[in-house]
Amino acid sequence: MTFLQGLLSSISTRTRLLGNASNAVQGSDAHLHALASACETLMQRGGEASQIMTAQRALTHYQQLEPEERQAFFKLLADEYAAEPQAIHAAYQAYCESEDNAALEKLFNACEPRRQDLLRRLNLCPGGTFELVKMRADLLKQLRHAPDLAALNSDFSHLFNSWFNRGFLVLESIDWNTPAAVLEKLIQYEAVHAISDWRDLRRRLDPEDRRCYAFFHPATGDEPLIFVEVALCKGIPDNVQRILEHGEEVPMDEADTAVFYSISNCQAGLKGVSFGNFLIKQVVQELSRELPQLKNFVTLSPVPGFADWLAEQRTSQSVTLSQPLQTFLESGESSGLPAAVHKEFMRLAAHYLVEAKHRSGQPLNPVARFHLGNGASLHRLNWLGDISSKGMQQAHGLMVNYLYQLDRIEQNHEAYTRNYSVVCANDIRRLAGQADQYFSTEANA
Amino acid sequence: MTFLQGLLSSISTRTRLLGNASNAVQGSDAHLHALASACETLMQRGGEASQIMTAQRALTHYQQLEPEERQAFFKLLADEYAAEPQAIHAAYQAYCESEDNAALEKLFNACEPRRQDLLRRLNLCPGGTFELVKMRADLLKQLRHAPDLAALNSDFSHLFNSWFNRGFLVLESIDWNTPAAVLEKLIQYEAVHAISDWRDLRRRLDPEDRRCYAFFHPATGDEPLIFVEVALCKGIPDNVQRILEHGEEVPMDEADTAVFYSISNCQAGLKGVSFGNFLIKQVVQELSRELPQLKNFVTLSPVPGFADWLAEQRTSQSVTLSQPLQTFLESGESSGLPAAVHKEFMRLAAHYLVEAKHRSGQPLNPVARFHLGNGASLHRLNWLGDISSKGMQQAHGLMVNYLYQLDRIEQNHEAYTRNYSVVCANDIRRLAGQADQYFSTEANA
Amino acid sequence: MTFLQGLLSSISTRTRLLGNASNAVQGSDAHLHALASACETLMQRGGEASQIMTAQRALTHYQQLEPEERQAFFKLLADEYAAEPQAIHAAYQAYCESEDNAALEKLFNACEPRRQDLLRRLNLCPGGTFELVKMRADLLKQLRHAPDLAALNSDFSHLFNSWFNRGFLVLESIDWNTPAAVLEKLIQYEAVHAISDWRDLRRRLDPEDRRCYAFFHPATGDEPLIFVEVALCKGIPDNVQRILEHGEEVPMDEADTAVFYSISNCQAGLKGVSFGNFLIKQVVQELSRELPQLKNFVTLSPVPGFADWLAEQRTSQSVTLSQPLQTFLESGESSGLPAAVHKEFMRLAAHYLVEAKHRSGQPLNPVARFHLGNGASLHRLNWLGDISSKGMQQAHGLMVNYLYQLDRIEQNHEAYTRNYSVVCANDIRRLAGQADQYFSTEANA
Amino acid sequence: MTFLQGLLSSISTRTRLLGNASNAVQGSDAHLHALASACETLMQRGGEASQIMTAQRALTHYQQLEPEERQAFFKLLADEYAAEPQAIHAAYQAYCESEDNAALEKLFNACEPRRQDLLRRLNLCPGGTFELVKMRADLLKQLRHAPDLAALNSDFSHLFNSWFNRGFLVLESIDWNTPAAVLEKLIQYEAVHAISDWRDLRRRLDPEDRRCYAFFHPATGDEPLIFVEVALCKGIPDNVQRILEHGEEVPMDEADTAVFYSISNCQAGLKGVSFGNFLIKQVVQELSRELPQLKNFVTLSPVPGFADWLAEQRTSQSVTLSQPLQTFLESGESSGLPAAVHKEFMRLAAHYLVEAKHRSGQPLNPVARFHLGNGASLHRLNWLGDISSKGMQQAHGLMVNYLYQLDRIEQNHEAYTRNYSVVCANDIRRLAGQADQYFSTEANA
Repeated sequence: MTFLQGLLSSISTRTRLLGNASNAVQGSDAHLHALASACETLMQRGGEASQIMTAQRALTHYQQLEPEERQAFFKLLADEYAAEPQAIHAAYQAYCESEDNAALEKLFNACEPRRQDLLRRLNLCPGGTFELVKMRADLLKQLRHAPDLAALNSDFSHLFNSWFNRGFLVLESIDWNTPAAVLEKLIQYEAVHAISDWRDLRRRLDPEDRRCYAFFHPATGDEPLIFVEVALCKGIPDNVQRILEHGEEVPMDEADTAVFYSISNCQAGLKGVSFGNFLIKQVVQELSRELPQLKNFVTLSPVPGFADWLAEQRTSQSVTLSQPLQTFLESGESSGLPAAVHKEFMRLAAHYLVEAKHRSGQPLNPVARFHLGNGASLHRLNWLGDISSKGMQQAHGLMVNYLYQLDRIEQNHEAYTRNYSVVCANDIRRLAGQADQYFSTEANA
Repeated sequence: MTFLQGLLSSISTRTRLLGNASNAVQGSDAHLHALASACETLMQRGGEASQIMTAQRALTHYQQLEPEERQAFFKLLADEYAAEPQAIHAAYQAYCESEDNAALEKLFNACEPRRQDLLRRLNLCPGGTFELVKMRADLLKQLRHAPDLAALNSDFSHLFNSWFNRGFLVLESIDWNTPAAVLEKLIQYEAVHAISDWRDLRRRLDPEDRRCYAFFHPATGDEPLIFVEVALCKGIPDNVQRILEHGEEVPMDEADTAVFYSISNCQAGLKGVSFGNFLIKQVVQELSRELPQLKNFVTLSPVPGFADWLAEQRTSQSVTLSQPLQTFLESGESSGLPAAVHKEFMRLAAHYLVEAKHRSGQPLNPVARFHLGNGASLHRLNWLGDISSKGMQQAHGLMVNYLYQLDRIEQNHEAYTRNYSVVCANDIRRLAGQADQYFSTEANA
Repeated sequence: MTFLQGLLSSISTRTRLLGNASNAVQGSDAHLHALASACETLMQRGGEASQIMTAQRALTHYQQLEPEERQAFFKLLADEYAAEPQAIHAAYQAYCESEDNAALEKLFNACEPRRQDLLRRLNLCPGGTFELVKMRADLLKQLRHAPDLAALNSDFSHLFNSWFNRGFLVLESIDWNTPAAVLEKLIQYEAVHAISDWRDLRRRLDPEDRRCYAFFHPATGDEPLIFVEVALCKGIPDNVQRILEHGEEVPMDEADTAVFYSISNCQAGLKGVSFGNFLIKQVVQELSRELPQLKNFVTLSPVPGFADWLAEQRTSQSVTLSQPLQTFLESGESSGLPAAVHKEFMRLAAHYLVEAKHRSGQPLNPVARFHLGNGASLHRLNWLGDISSKGMQQAHGLMVNYLYQLDRIEQNHEAYTRNYSVVCANDIRRLAGQADQYFSTEANA
Repeated sequence: MTFLQGLLSSISTRTRLLGNASNAVQGSDAHLHALASACETLMQRGGEASQIMTAQRALTHYQQLEPEERQAFFKLLADEYAAEPQAIHAAYQAYCESEDNAALEKLFNACEPRRQDLLRRLNLCPGGTFELVKMRADLLKQLRHAPDLAALNSDFSHLFNSWFNRGFLVLESIDWNTPAAVLEKLIQYEAVHAISDWRDLRRRLDPEDRRCYAFFHPATGDEPLIFVEVALCKGIPDNVQRILEHGEEVPMDEADTAVFYSISNCQAGLKGVSFGNFLIKQVVQELSRELPQLKNFVTLSPVPGFADWLAEQRTSQSVTLSQPLQTFLESGESSGLPAAVHKEFMRLAAHYLVEAKHRSGQPLNPVARFHLGNGASLHRLNWLGDISSKGMQQAHGLMVNYLYQLDRIEQNHEAYTRNYSVVCANDIRRLAGQADQYFSTEANA
């Protein structure tokens, strides 16, 4: 086996190691105590010689816990693995005298919750990182009912932002030659346009005009963190069903547009660690290098929340719609609709995306926030771009193209962060302006 | 290219990417200013869209700095990237009221030196991790003359202990099929028994009774962090020259002993991140699995400092030695020495290793501290075990075997950490006791 | 990319190269002429400079041919690419004078059909080998209607036996980490117990007590040549449904038996090149090394032809069966059958496998011929071992275990090749003897 | 381990397997008998069950033979493994009756020396292919003293041309990341400009403006078959020392020329299997794809034989040279030579390369035959292009650029094969014409 092959094979077998170990553990009600005791051992000075085994034992016990036991464990971390108030007071007094770096360092150390050190030590064992990611996913589920765990959540977040730093991530191209063990995870994690089976998966990966990229982290092996599906097209597409059905393959020398039509985060436990931003930009770079003929890099994005927002406007009577449009919104029946209705709908859509804002000043629509925050611009609205039941339900079929222009990204991003103004194509801005006529008073969410 | 091959190839080309970028930078005296400005941009909220490029620019400027400019940069980090006293005071006041987790979290955040966040952001770009490791190596060189940089050093140390956590390391077997680009680094980094050329290297890697293992980190690609060279032998060897010359190969079915005869840390910038402990234990496991016939896992270790210590004892007249031993110590001429001299020497050696302690209570000898701290025991002293000029100079030829017994490691380690008592073979303890006769008063360092 | 990774990536992209080239060819009725002309060019001395491109052109034209055009091409090869009679006569005259090696060499060269040289030249281009394998598959389909193509078939066979020599094959373990592009071929090629979908496939590959091995040839990349599916069991299993359904996993330390329950040849075009023999023996070696606890290596094999044979015996009235057995044979209804019927059936089965022979002296049953020829012995008959409709139809549910004992293989093989005597367990031989009572006259096929 | 990694790891460990087996064999004078007996077993029908082991045994015995025993073995193959005359006579009679394909096939089979079948069977075992290549290298050494082994040599040649078909070869890029085990073979096999040590090797592989490519065969693993070293330059270089010393690196965006400055065949046993032709052309393609800015693909080639030829002309007084040129030829001292001498030398060189022909009509110079036969043209003569002692000795420092133009290759090749006319630049042809004045009579070799 060659040098680098060895490197990989050890990476990819890590998760298994832990899995097997877990079989050895039996009996369940003692796991919480055993876990608590293993954590204590792990933090002791004398236990260093067998830290890896202790960490592995701890995580194996954790796996066996029932949900309520997990909550008890999280409470234990929150209560017993905070910091020593006395040590903090003393360090603060010392800091006040000098306010220098040496005193700051001591104060920082005194303030660091012991939980962070514990998590670092649990991470010593093979497969530990992925177990900790799953542990945080458990925590997030309990968070809304147990707000006192928020600080523990911040500890995880602090560590994961350091560990899953962009510099440690690896971009991988995924295709039909990828191991099945990875591919089945795409089916599982796809969050935008569900993959129905292996044939559907193959349609998205195997044709020459289809690409897929994912970020991986060496310590979590073949578990994808986020992935994006790309279609290479001639012109900017306005409809996602045509992409998903994949009729005729576009010859590579005719393709001028790369469309990001699905982006899915895979690990609930990594919430708050931002990958999507970096992923899209790096994929744009990769594709530009490989296929210099590509001119446009766009998304074909859903508009979740649009239907709900419109329903609210109607309920609160802040908007007045034509009868045919109301009929369409209620029935979804689009054949035979007059052009005026189409226009009315598009104005409302433009208004929603450009004008409808949160109290924070940010756009209401979460997908818009993501892409505009990345420096993309709102490029085009697509009538009946997604006629699946999900697409009709969440946005009456509306889809949107966001445009990524490498030489505009920074300035777009700055414009957006300055005052959350939506960078968009002129005709969309015009449409948004024309929507005023439908609103009794200016509607803001 | 397959999935995992891609994973690797991107890892291994990282360092290059940065290297090339650096060619584009010209002119030198402006680099410090440019670096400072890039760091500022990196910390701003509005700059997120192009963080990776900014980080890369910053590191490229850093590479161009002269040593004194680097020192200025470190001062800048120390002075300008600490924390806000006001924010600390406010957070502390709030903490005093509740002493709860929420307040602790805010205090912790207020106390975290901004340097740590800056270093995490510099790490965003390809190759960034290795550049930061080299940056800290630069810092360490300046530290003794600039003690005010100690806190900055702690920030590096804090991050590196998290990033180079055992869970992120990959153990690799190194042999003659390893890429030359990795092998030449072994020649460069070998710190115990210098590798004279590629033929010498091959003698250590290619024969079936030779092994070599190293830890790598995915983000630093093919840069080894630490490596250990192993000889498989029949019986426990007492002489390192015979190992280095490598005469006849030991048939695998006759080998019963694995000897760790050289362990080298490779990255000065990772000082304080402990790898050796984990490395030896994992190699013991790997070898046990592959070659169940192995019965002994020992080191053949140098005893640096022994000659100096003995010279001090003689200078301070706290020890009285026989004339023939004095002659040997001065001339290094061993032929024709009476057996009594040999015994005298060994008693002194045992005394040095078992009894000579630091004020802290730890053994004087650093190699002993390392292996005893890992849970090994002091197993045998070897007269003229290393007759190279280095070996004669530092220890009059003395070498030592430390013994790693998996089922004793934890208890040895605990015994050692309890009161730094040296776990050793009975005959060595006896020898150490017999040394009292040579000392006027008990000599401690 | 590392050295060996490069080696592989070029191998695995070969097939694609040719595939793409074929798109460039347009129009269809001219392909036969173009192919004939390319073959001529390929054989000319002056064309060497661009042989690879010519070969590629030829194979691309071949791909476009309609079946009847392919037959015309085969005829062309048979008629125009034989050997020169004059050259043969001259070489023979010379040979008769000396009968020495030099004359033999010339005669051999004169007799070698030019087709063989042409096929070697077609093989120059990337992907050529696999195209030639498919070409022969086409030829085999036409062979029964065009017996004059038999010599061409022999030329293919001669070359393929040299090219697909065991020394060039690579044994691969296939599991759930294998690229999907390979796995889908298993679904396609499985010939014994059909794989219904990806979930069924996963059940056969992913559990720890399941293995799969295949032979590959570097020049045909990821196209498997033959594969075998293995179940690790506790005891020798007597029923294939239990294996296919895969209930509880057998812990590795309890497994004592490896069962080869499905062996499929993948490439029709490689008919007559024997792989199965080598595959089973190497897999036995691999498994013995990895899992020394394995004691038995057996097959669980179908008995195709048994039902047909029994039906013939009944039609020709050479056998007299009890009424309940007749009912079972006709209805397949096994519940409530008396033990005597079971015994009667087993005697007939034993008779069929041990006594029923071809005119050539070989056993009638093809699966028996294969395994006995490999040196296995007939170990056990399993009543209702395969109750799928296929299993009931071809053998009334009968399955058979053949036993591979490494230290008996050679002597079993020799016994078999000497006079086709069936090496079998004593009780099977006894059962076979007891079957005489049912036969009016000795029944031979 | 992934699918393709497994494929490779099994390939690369093949050679070792055989190597280890050989240790088990003891005693030497019985090896020839044991080998002969193993060969006999291998050819028997009954021995099929253990063919691989028998083949391995045979090759292991062969390895132990002394040179004279090897000769005896070759004689045995020549004498005992030819073909059956009776069978040939019978098959020939049958052929004469029909002259059809069926009869031809039988005659062909009767004429095939049994040696070929034996060699195919020896190839069954792991590592067998490489052992057979080395066996033929042994044979070639003995051939000149034992011309009766020529037919055996033809059998090897016939098989190797089939086995080492271009379609089975893999082109690999070699660089500083290649395993040391492969790199040390480059040092060993380099045949044009010797590689003095690992530093010299690194200079040829590691800089960005240096490339190296080799053909490998999967069955011979990491043994290169042929390799070519390439320098990327600005303009066509006229001096090989400047390339070998490698001063400043050429930036990739300035490089316009790829220079093939060294091509070495690695395996003596593969004599007569042509690789170089395919290698150069594929490397031209690879480089064109990777670096579209490259405009020229040239060699910088030695002119072995020129000095000898010139010496012969002078000895036979068929040429009359100026005194200063004679002095230069004898002393190698070039400083202060008048321009006229330089011109005289170049005319003679042009004459040698363009006009001096074999009786066969081919150019005298073997390097010219190779490149012109590949479709290159003679592009430029370089005065003092190689001033190493080897370069001065064989060609008085003369080096030559041959030019590979992809769109001219076929027509150049055809022109050359038609009548061996040398395709060359106009000024070289003119120089060659001007050389007539120095020759008394037209000199042909």
